[in-house]
Amino acid sequence: MTITPPALSVFESLESEVRSYCRGWPAVFDRAQGARLTDEDGHSYLDFFAGAGSLNYGHNNPVLKRALLDYIERDGITHGLDMATTAKRAFLETFQNVILRPRDLPYKVMFPGPTGTNAVESALKLARKVKGRESIVSFTNAFHGMSLGSLAVTGNAFKRAGAGIPLVHGTPMPFDNYLDGRVPDFLWFERLLEDQGSGLNKPAAVIVETVQGEGGINVARPEWLRALADLCRRRDMLLIVDDIQMGCGRTGAFFSFEEAGIVPDIVTVSKSISGYGLPMSLCLFKGELDVWEPGEHNGTFRGNNPAFVTATAALDAYWADGQMEKHTLARGEQVEQALLALCTEHGRLGASYRGRGLVWGLEFADPARASEVCARAFELGLLLETSGPKSEVVKLLPPLTITPDELDEGLRSLARAVAATV
Amino acid sequence: MTITPPALSVFESLESEVRSYCRGWPAVFDRAQGARLTDEDGHSYLDFFAGAGSLNYGHNNPVLKRALLDYIERDGITHGLDMATTAKRAFLETFQNVILRPRDLPYKVMFPGPTGTNAVESALKLARKVKGRESIVSFTNAFHGMSLGSLAVTGNAFKRAGAGIPLVHGTPMPFDNYLDGRVPDFLWFERLLEDQGSGLNKPAAVIVETVQGEGGINVARPEWLRALADLCRRRDMLLIVDDIQMGCGRTGAFFSFEEAGIVPDIVTVSKSISGYGLPMSLCLFKGELDVWEPGEHNGTFRGNNPAFVTATAALDAYWADGQMEKHTLARGEQVEQALLALCTEHGRLGASYRGRGLVWGLEFADPARASEVCARAFELGLLLETSGPKSEVVKLLPPLTITPDELDEGLRSLARAVAATV
Amino acid sequence: MTITPPALSVFESLESEVRSYCRGWPAVFDRAQGARLTDEDGHSYLDFFAGAGSLNYGHNNPVLKRALLDYIERDGITHGLDMATTAKRAFLETFQNVILRPRDLPYKVMFPGPTGTNAVESALKLARKVKGRESIVSFTNAFHGMSLGSLAVTGNAFKRAGAGIPLVHGTPMPFDNYLDGRVPDFLWFERLLEDQGSGLNKPAAVIVETVQGEGGINVARPEWLRALADLCRRRDMLLIVDDIQMGCGRTGAFFSFEEAGIVPDIVTVSKSISGYGLPMSLCLFKGELDVWEPGEHNGTFRGNNPAFVTATAALDAYWADGQMEKHTLARGEQVEQALLALCTEHGRLGASYRGRGLVWGLEFADPARASEVCARAFELGLLLETSGPKSEVVKLLPPLTITPDELDEGLRSLARAVAATV
Amino acid sequence: MTITPPALSVFESLESEVRSYCRGWPAVFDRAQGARLTDEDGHSYLDFFAGAGSLNYGHNNPVLKRALLDYIERDGITHGLDMATTAKRAFLETFQNVILRPRDLPYKVMFPGPTGTNAVESALKLARKVKGRESIVSFTNAFHGMSLGSLAVTGNAFKRAGAGIPLVHGTPMPFDNYLDGRVPDFLWFERLLEDQGSGLNKPAAVIVETVQGEGGINVARPEWLRALADLCRRRDMLLIVDDIQMGCGRTGAFFSFEEAGIVPDIVTVSKSISGYGLPMSLCLFKGELDVWEPGEHNGTFRGNNPAFVTATAALDAYWADGQMEKHTLARGEQVEQALLALCTEHGRLGASYRGRGLVWGLEFADPARASEVCARAFELGLLLETSGPKSEVVKLLPPLTITPDELDEGLRSLARAVAATV
Repeated sequence: MTITPPALSVFESLESEVRSYCRGWPAVFDRAQGARLTDEDGHSYLDFFAGAGSLNYGHNNPVLKRALLDYIERDGITHGLDMATTAKRAFLETFQNVILRPRDLPYKVMFPGPTGTNAVESALKLARKVKGRESIVSFTNAFHGMSLGSLAVTGNAFKRAGAGIPLVHGTPMPFDNYLDGRVPDFLWFERLLEDQGSGLNKPAAVIVETVQGEGGINVARPEWLRALADLCRRRDMLLIVDDIQMGCGRTGAFFSFEEAGIVPDIVTVSKSISGYGLPMSLCLFKGELDVWEPGEHNGTFRGNNPAFVTATAALDAYWADGQMEKHTLARGEQVEQALLALCTEHGRLGASYRGRGLVWGLEFADPARASEVCARAFELGLLLETSGPKSEVVKLLPPLTITPDELDEGLRSLARAVAATV
Repeated sequence: MTITPPALSVFESLESEVRSYCRGWPAVFDRAQGARLTDEDGHSYLDFFAGAGSLNYGHNNPVLKRALLDYIERDGITHGLDMATTAKRAFLETFQNVILRPRDLPYKVMFPGPTGTNAVESALKLARKVKGRESIVSFTNAFHGMSLGSLAVTGNAFKRAGAGIPLVHGTPMPFDNYLDGRVPDFLWFERLLEDQGSGLNKPAAVIVETVQGEGGINVARPEWLRALADLCRRRDMLLIVDDIQMGCGRTGAFFSFEEAGIVPDIVTVSKSISGYGLPMSLCLFKGELDVWEPGEHNGTFRGNNPAFVTATAALDAYWADGQMEKHTLARGEQVEQALLALCTEHGRLGASYRGRGLVWGLEFADPARASEVCARAFELGLLLETSGPKSEVVKLLPPLTITPDELDEGLRSLARAVAATV
Repeated sequence: MTITPPALSVFESLESEVRSYCRGWPAVFDRAQGARLTDEDGHSYLDFFAGAGSLNYGHNNPVLKRALLDYIERDGITHGLDMATTAKRAFLETFQNVILRPRDLPYKVMFPGPTGTNAVESALKLARKVKGRESIVSFTNAFHGMSLGSLAVTGNAFKRAGAGIPLVHGTPMPFDNYLDGRVPDFLWFERLLEDQGSGLNKPAAVIVETVQGEGGINVARPEWLRALADLCRRRDMLLIVDDIQMGCGRTGAFFSFEEAGIVPDIVTVSKSISGYGLPMSLCLFKGELDVWEPGEHNGTFRGNNPAFVTATAALDAYWADGQMEKHTLARGEQVEQALLALCTEHGRLGASYRGRGLVWGLEFADPARASEVCARAFELGLLLETSGPKSEVVKLLPPLTITPDELDEGLRSLARAVAATV
Repeated sequence: MTITPPALSVFESLESEVRSYCRGWPAVFDRAQGARLTDEDGHSYLDFFAGAGSLNYGHNNPVLKRALLDYIERDGITHGLDMATTAKRAFLETFQNVILRPRDLPYKVMFPGPTGTNAVESALKLARKVKGRESIVSFTNAFHGMSLGSLAVTGNAFKRAGAGIPLVHGTPMPFDNYLDGRVPDFLWFERLLEDQGSGLNKPAAVIVETVQGEGGINVARPEWLRALADLCRRRDMLLIVDDIQMGCGRTGAFFSFEEAGIVPDIVTVSKSISGYGLPMSLCLFKGELDVWEPGEHNGTFRGNNPAFVTATAALDAYWADGQMEKHTLARGEQVEQALLALCTEHGRLGASYRGRGLVWGLEFADPARASEVCARAFELGLLLETSGPKSEVVKLLPPLTITPDELDEGLRSLARAVAATV
């Protein structure tokens, strides 16, 4: 494939230097369908990034698209603040019937604003209000968002420095396997909690991702999550699972924590919840934690009703039975096989892989190689991003609805890209 | 009009107690067009709230709707992160040609995430980074958002308490006329800045709304804004105008600060920028302030491309010439006349009014009356909200595209609602 | 008088650059008595600084010296932590009988550590604990100490910058006459408190000096102090008077707030409380505020028993009757007359003066002149220091026990020093 | 010995509830000499607490006493701020000649105020200024003082809660052997530092006690201290040793870190530095760190000249040769033998001991026993205190000048007290 240098002028002259993805993928994208994007020059790209996990059902999924067009055409409420609307009711009822009830999850639903960081901010506020304490424990290499509350529990030093103020009230603890198995799980955390002289401000809550996406595809073991949930219960801390990237089926089950059999006190959901890439997020919490006063947290775009419509359609279409999870796990095995073969073939690159469901990471001994692989993949028409503190991990996040053939095609492109860097 | 008690059950049983507007407006809204909403029972409501200022062009504006449907139908990119897309380019070019160039505004454009508070957070981060200082000055009764950075510069004690941590790094100063003209403008602020012993941490920036919407429709005089801009310049502080609610033509001109003839260093825009009520926001800043590193601030829904499409259509349709501003100012005079008549007629209620363009506030001596008026108005099919620290002000925010007849109808309903509370 | 350059070598080579007074007074002092110090070359200096107000009874006051020597000779407890000792009991009883009871002051006594900043830190802790709030209001040009809690309520930007962290939880309000009488007292503060949208975190307490010593000898009027006390009462904030420099008779009465007829909730006392320049401080508070748990605040040198001994002797010798106050006020008038004459004579210097009791400030239109006057005074054998944010005020703090003749001598030296700068 | 209930009335009625030691030792102490105190009823007590380590040379040491009396009698400067005085020069020269030069220590000397917490506050300020970073790492069960800066790096939850504000900018790390040898030293700390995604705000400095006195007599191994010093050097953090309680010979050598062969960047010294129990402290730091501006940190009682006199006398009398260290180590062995015998005899109490030089801790399986032992010891005329987060450790801190016979007497009383609790 030949890439013509795209006409990026207005992006370069008018848009802020803060822009990022457009630098690694120098194309002007025009339209998309399923697992493929097309740029304005007609080049096609297979998408192994899926809007950073926001497009689990693919781009412009036709089922959702139909519902969305119908809703817009009939002048359904678009912007609804937190007014009751028919679209919101349909979403709430479907979410209850399709997601919460079958899993016996005792959650109230809050619409905290349409972005993930809105959900995290509201979760932290609520935890602090409930417990009357300021401190939050997060984990190494956590990523929870860019507004100040979320950023304070995010690990990345570069993002943190952007705050311009010292980020406080958060303390990092080692994520699963952070110390290479040399230390018993939670030994340090539990000692800090039990020791009245430890100097740890007692946390209101712990916030955790079951798989750290931005942090490098670090997968927490179910037993580690269960031990964490148990620790939180015993030590009077709320457990917040940030399921923004790993929820909505990314790891197989709808919620990524289902496999571990835990029931977090608070769950944040966003990215793929609307199913169509439209901004939407939820903060879920146990009923007894619903101590909010009316309007104590609010926001202009809480009621993005078109997102409710596509969200409802997605739940109906994909989660009424267990097919989605089976499909995801099958595709995940396909990825795993390919990564195993790839690592075996290129043994001297010191590559390793890990993942769950359809989120996988491929790490190289030389961190620079990951970026190089992504650059080569782009030339081959495959969108891939890195993650991890040194951008040392190639992250695989294809749409869950990708076909086996498309997946195979992408994995072959990845193999070619890796080979090209050797 | 008779209101049937709506079926709110799932809202009450499943949605968090934090829900708010749905309590004052007990209806389930189904569809909307222009200045009118219709609930599922077929009742029609005239909208004098306009999505808290997010629907300046009315609900489901047909011009924007057509562009949106076309875009969705042709599978245009929906979720684009900060990739270059054709929709984004069209927006950037149009924003440059229709808005920035004619006004000679030297701004770079940042997409900080789709909500207002994303924009404010990014503005504060940038100001702190540029100046290397933590402190921000805000104003009494300011409202800038619910995430921790924005909340720290927001005045409302109830919202602040929701933070669960002490909100620091912000210092309030008196907004225009806060002390009833008994104190020269900026006397206190300037003394604090010039006195090396004042105890004020030197601010990186000042953040201000030209008209405080949530704070009670407090209108800053142009000369006060000019003096503030001058103070910021002399004292090496950046001036941030939060134009999220008052921009996009709400006060007449596209930016609310144009009337004062100032050029803020940073401007936040959101709410009506997409024109269709879709989540979108911008952070604008002078080119020399663009010290961001790539990706230093990011967010999943920065590239809500459907919003770019409607935003572009809105700019093309309404801002290519000066008609919009004239129209808004004319409608504003219509409101002013009605409020004058209303206050005159009900002199003993101690009512007063103020406003600019199409944002007006009607304040009563008895704060409770404002809520009562809004409740009566709802019964009369008119959506009105209160604002101000004691909810003592009835806020009028009709769509800018409202017709003179609709406006008249609403104003008459308001008069009836007031009369009904006497 | 001829000054031989002193042998400062070890001070320059070994002591940190942070040293300060020794730079303005380049002599090596050896001994002192009453209002006079003698350096190692035998030069004598009249002391108008009195250890920054720590030597109200003069250097090495013979009455106190005798008690101190006796105590040391008989091996009285020197270091007593907070153990009960006979010396401490004598002090407590004397303080109760001589100071608290005659003034009907309802205070408990805390020994928070031997320095002023220990007292301020404990006062702020207690106020926060009692009220359950973090925020403290201080005043422009306040000085309360150098440890982080005290520094956060201190005005001086240079000292604040030394913290190395952003100083938060404090908000400055205008001290009496800060805005030159152009604004009604407490107009701004009260508006902030009464307005639920002001953005001021509700303060636990207000901390104030009745006369700001380091801040430039700013004298609060009694009516201003009364209005402040009233505001605190009405708005549920504790009133802390920091009487570290102005207490122990400096302004006439034992406590500087007596003239205003107020009874603060908390009072900090230090500097001259031991009478002999020995480290000692007290935190006094109303009985109902004594919510401390045993040991919740502690410190190694709380029980500096030699200081208790001299403190007891000083109270017995000087405060059993009203002579001390009369004497101080008479000497104060002597100073005032001299300053009046001086300002009159040198009218074109734009000099002004203010003060109470035996604390006076002489301010010059040209800030640099104050330092120059102090330098000339040193050459004339008079120790004088500047204060104020620009070091623009010559501060007069002679021992209260100074004789009329010594005072006259010093005032004449001051006049000569001023004349020498013209 | 029969204890008559002492007349504590004024302490109970007038002194704050915060008083602490006087509750455990219900006597009114009158005088003291060497290792013994006498109460007003004539009862004698052997002192195994030594002013919490402030009386290393015993109470009212006769050599120091003579120097002090001479100085007071000749009207030497008592209160000297930071003026140059002959007493200060003598101290500086002696400190240089007797302490710094023989150890080849490259320190400048700062007088930060007379208490330990003044020294810690200044050390933290300086570290933050030098590095331009806010964060400080401290250790579990650290104790550094009660003012807000020091308290933020102190571990004890009860003391921390007294702050009344969230204590931030500090992060605890595990002290030596905190995790019972199950984790390699500094594994966690180093991972946090090397990982750009760890979420640890990069520290300006690490503050450590070589033996944690208040924290439970936790002794850091020399190799652990060396590894810490190495980590600080490699990771660009300053190393602050808080030698307030363990310095001045408590562990044998003058500085407690000498045994490990490290040279900290900053050292805080207080408690026994004056030798006589008079308030005095020092902050020592490498010459290249002396970036203070004149007066950037100050304090009224920095120049407590009587303390300089006794400090000089103590250095001359005890540190001109190596006898002091030998003596201390010999006495330490005497203590160790006794504790070994005691633990052996009472094996079923699950007692263990640890210590260095003349600081020892005796821990019981049942935490309550430690307090009981101290109470019994008091009845037997022995002053002993507990330490540790649960007050589970009996702390032995006799004067270094204690005679072998006195030490033996005290150890026998301790044995009797332990036996009495069985």
